[in-house]
Amino acid sequence: MASIARSSFRLRSVTRVPTARTISTTPHLRAAAKPFFADEPAGPKLATAIPGPKNKAATAELDKVFDVRSLNMLTDYSKSIGNYSTLIVISSVSPTLWLMSVASYAQIASIPVGYNNPHLTKVAQSPEMTTSLINRPALGNFPSADWADILNTGILKVAPKGLNQVFTAMAGSDANETAYKAAFMYYRQLQRGGPEKEFTEEELQTTMNNQSPGSPQLSIMSFKSAFHGRLFGSLSTTRSKPIHKLDIPAFDWPQAPFPSLKYPLEEHAQENAQEEQRCLQETERLIKEWHNPVAAVVVEPIQSEGGDNHASPAFFRGLREITKRNNVLFIVDEVQTGVGATGKFWAHDHWNLETPPDMVTFSKKAQTAGYYYGNPALRPNKPYRQFNTWMGDPARALIFRGIIEEIERLNLVEHTAKTGEYLYSGLQRLAEKYPEHLQNLRGKGQGTFIAWDTPKRDEFLGKAKGVGVNIGGSGVSAVRLRPMLIFQQHHGKSNSTLAQTCRTGANVSAADILLESIEKIIKQL
Amino acid sequence: MASIARSSFRLRSVTRVPTARTISTTPHLRAAAKPFFADEPAGPKLATAIPGPKNKAATAELDKVFDVRSLNMLTDYSKSIGNYSTLIVISSVSPTLWLMSVASYAQIASIPVGYNNPHLTKVAQSPEMTTSLINRPALGNFPSADWADILNTGILKVAPKGLNQVFTAMAGSDANETAYKAAFMYYRQLQRGGPEKEFTEEELQTTMNNQSPGSPQLSIMSFKSAFHGRLFGSLSTTRSKPIHKLDIPAFDWPQAPFPSLKYPLEEHAQENAQEEQRCLQETERLIKEWHNPVAAVVVEPIQSEGGDNHASPAFFRGLREITKRNNVLFIVDEVQTGVGATGKFWAHDHWNLETPPDMVTFSKKAQTAGYYYGNPALRPNKPYRQFNTWMGDPARALIFRGIIEEIERLNLVEHTAKTGEYLYSGLQRLAEKYPEHLQNLRGKGQGTFIAWDTPKRDEFLGKAKGVGVNIGGSGVSAVRLRPMLIFQQHHGKSNSTLAQTCRTGANVSAADILLESIEKIIKQL
Repeated sequence: MASIARSSFRLRSVTRVPTARTISTTPHLRAAAKPFFADEPAGPKLATAIPGPKNKAATAELDKVFDVRSLNMLTDYSKSIGNYSTLIVISSVSPTLWLMSVASYAQIASIPVGYNNPHLTKVAQSPEMTTSLINRPALGNFPSADWADILNTGILKVAPKGLNQVFTAMAGSDANETAYKAAFMYYRQLQRGGPEKEFTEEELQTTMNNQSPGSPQLSIMSFKSAFHGRLFGSLSTTRSKPIHKLDIPAFDWPQAPFPSLKYPLEEHAQENAQEEQRCLQETERLIKEWHNPVAAVVVEPIQSEGGDNHASPAFFRGLREITKRNNVLFIVDEVQTGVGATGKFWAHDHWNLETPPDMVTFSKKAQTAGYYYGNPALRPNKPYRQFNTWMGDPARALIFRGIIEEIERLNLVEHTAKTGEYLYSGLQRLAEKYPEHLQNLRGKGQGTFIAWDTPKRDEFLGKAKGVGVNIGGSGVSAVRLRPMLIFQQHHGKSNSTLAQTCRTGANVSAADILLESIEKIIKQL
Repeated sequence: MASIARSSFRLRSVTRVPTARTISTTPHLRAAAKPFFADEPAGPKLATAIPGPKNKAATAELDKVFDVRSLNMLTDYSKSIGNYSTLIVISSVSPTLWLMSVASYAQIASIPVGYNNPHLTKVAQSPEMTTSLINRPALGNFPSADWADILNTGILKVAPKGLNQVFTAMAGSDANETAYKAAFMYYRQLQRGGPEKEFTEEELQTTMNNQSPGSPQLSIMSFKSAFHGRLFGSLSTTRSKPIHKLDIPAFDWPQAPFPSLKYPLEEHAQENAQEEQRCLQETERLIKEWHNPVAAVVVEPIQSEGGDNHASPAFFRGLREITKRNNVLFIVDEVQTGVGATGKFWAHDHWNLETPPDMVTFSKKAQTAGYYYGNPALRPNKPYRQFNTWMGDPARALIFRGIIEEIERLNLVEHTAKTGEYLYSGLQRLAEKYPEHLQNLRGKGQGTFIAWDTPKRDEFLGKAKGVGVNIGGSGVSAVRLRPMLIFQQHHGKSNSTLAQTCRTGANVSAADILLESIEKIIKQL
């Protein structure tokens, strides 16, 4: 791979960058703004049809050793920058192709502060990173002397309100599954009458045969259309698509209904409130009646993979109440919604809960993973019950710390709230113009976490690359936007020679490029 | 954390290093040899009692946010080198304490080529590493253009014989669970009559409710005392200790008996052969009769966490035959045994199988994870069935490539075979001298993968740190050795000022230090 041209990608200095605070005091939303990345192109550029011949050949080579059927495009990350990823489509016309990376495919919503972010480059090249990479510790046994500091200045600096401890993990699936394990151990401890109660001989023996009471038939409740991961426990709570679940044994765990809201919300307020009430009642009934007792309820603030399904803060406050009333833990899965995309650092910050969730899981944009908790009783009563060799990866924890620093420096959470507002207004205008192609627009006030339904969804997604936009879907009919946090309303004219945009306009807006592209695609349908 | 003193840790150049080839042609095993790490101390040094006051204070600080009850010792990795990790025990006497990192605790058998290995430092500071860390791809959708090259020059360069493809993962648990998923999908595909057969409407509907036939009641068979991980599917195949499993729901999967061999092997040949035969027969009976049909059998070449339980190559060849005969997949879990420690790159290389395992899982010393396979039919019949956001971590794949390069350069697999031979002989002498403290010595011909039973095991482990040795246990009564691959028979006199050894002898041997330490501990019991 070509070396990274460190010197050529410069982030504008703090003084020159329009922070979200600046933006929020700017009366006219469409005012020009300079890009966060000085050398970012002003728009996507396509050098060949997609995929180009080189991409095809390289994909065939990879296919020999690695299943490529889900592959979208081979990418040259060393030449990617900011919102733009470079696909390897070498042609006689041009050596590069910039493909705008918006929507679900900022690496499935997992890149927050841009490709080749200069601050992260520094973090990656720091001595702390080197030692984390080459002296990987078993964190449960031999954490590095500075592990508490790495946690306190990184992962825990952004801990959700009321939660001050963390169990670190590798990715979303094991973050959720370790949270489930903590819930089961807590539940049984309550049943036994406290942490000092010993296991019975019967428990010690039956668990070695995977039988109850040692391995009890308890459950985690999740919601219809939920996605919580693909390992055996997390997959048993995933209910988004059959293709994820077919042929894999699953636990006999209950599925509650998730509200099916009607849009626009303001025209269906009463109906939607009734629908949420119905779902809450059914949830409580299932908790009381399910044959395998429910130790915890897990929920996404916005069901992402399952179709960008929203519910109101009142619904989630209701859930919190139901779980408290029934002594069931409340786990909020913020793997996709966390780290700023909804215009709050955590999506559940929108809910104004009276008591915080018992556990909040995170991954994706955090680049590391785990679950936050506050109640010390969620630490199992003995060591080695919640344990594994690595328990996460300090190298990735350092990257998250760098991301947090970048989010703070550029005020990216507030920035994303504003960008989302601007984007949503634009989409609303398009929805009025093309009502048949842009239905159920949702995500108002949720940052850039915006989606809509469209009858020709897969065709829409297929044509997007042709206009230089990388966009993804969720559920069966939704187009979902998952831009990075550095996605801007406005891009200044780029000063880079790389940015030979195929567009004519200077001072074009990133959000405007996206809106214009969406209209172009619709016109092709 | 203090910066890494890159320049002060030098690895001896190739010409000065005694490669395993050199060692193997050296007639006298005790001949002097130079250390792989030029600045490695000649022996452990203790500056205070363990844990020292600073370690205690720092541990209390970490405990506020991170469960430390499994914590062994906070470690300063920036000051660690080769086989020696530095604990933070700042005292008035000396600023450092070297603790020899042998036995199970080279980060639970997961550090192969030494702390602060200079070649890995280079890898960590390369441009490829920087881009992998800051532009983390969703490998299933947008692999980097050089992903095939990273695989072919790294993970796949050391692929087990007959297996030429890989599905990459994060750690041992999800490596095993994704292998199990592949097995279930393959099994059902055979039942359906081929990859082109479509799912039935009933399957599509029932799987969304976690019910059969869509979520079938199939099983993975594992062995008594096995350890395969701690997530819900892998934990259902783990049978080592109740503490791992209590209170966690488990699948109703079968457990076959693992041979309980008597030592010394040469005195119990017939009995042991009969025991293995009994276990094989019972395994086949369970496969034929278990109520939840068995899709795959998973086995460790040496049960590690479960007590260092060995079986003969004939047993494993028998297992391979049984699985073939019954159309059940054969998964070999090399998470702990792989990457050289047994004196072969993969422990199952010792078996001389006629047909390779269907899948081999790896992690720990590889620093990345996944499963190898050869049969293209193990790729599920549709995309997105075996998939997740990251599907591993290219940064860690680059570290594995560096480890492989280091293993090849220093011929560390053969070297470990020889070191193991030497160590085993020394332990045999100790076993004759202290028969009550060193029972069932095992691992002959298995590199440094050596263990024994001792009645006062926990007391033994507790006293080890006091003599500067970090050593671990497995099962309920075993002491297990898990030195790094760079562990040597002989260390030359160190040329480092850091190596103010508390021992008097120069040209002391690493293995001899360990053997002498073991004797010291025994005398204290």
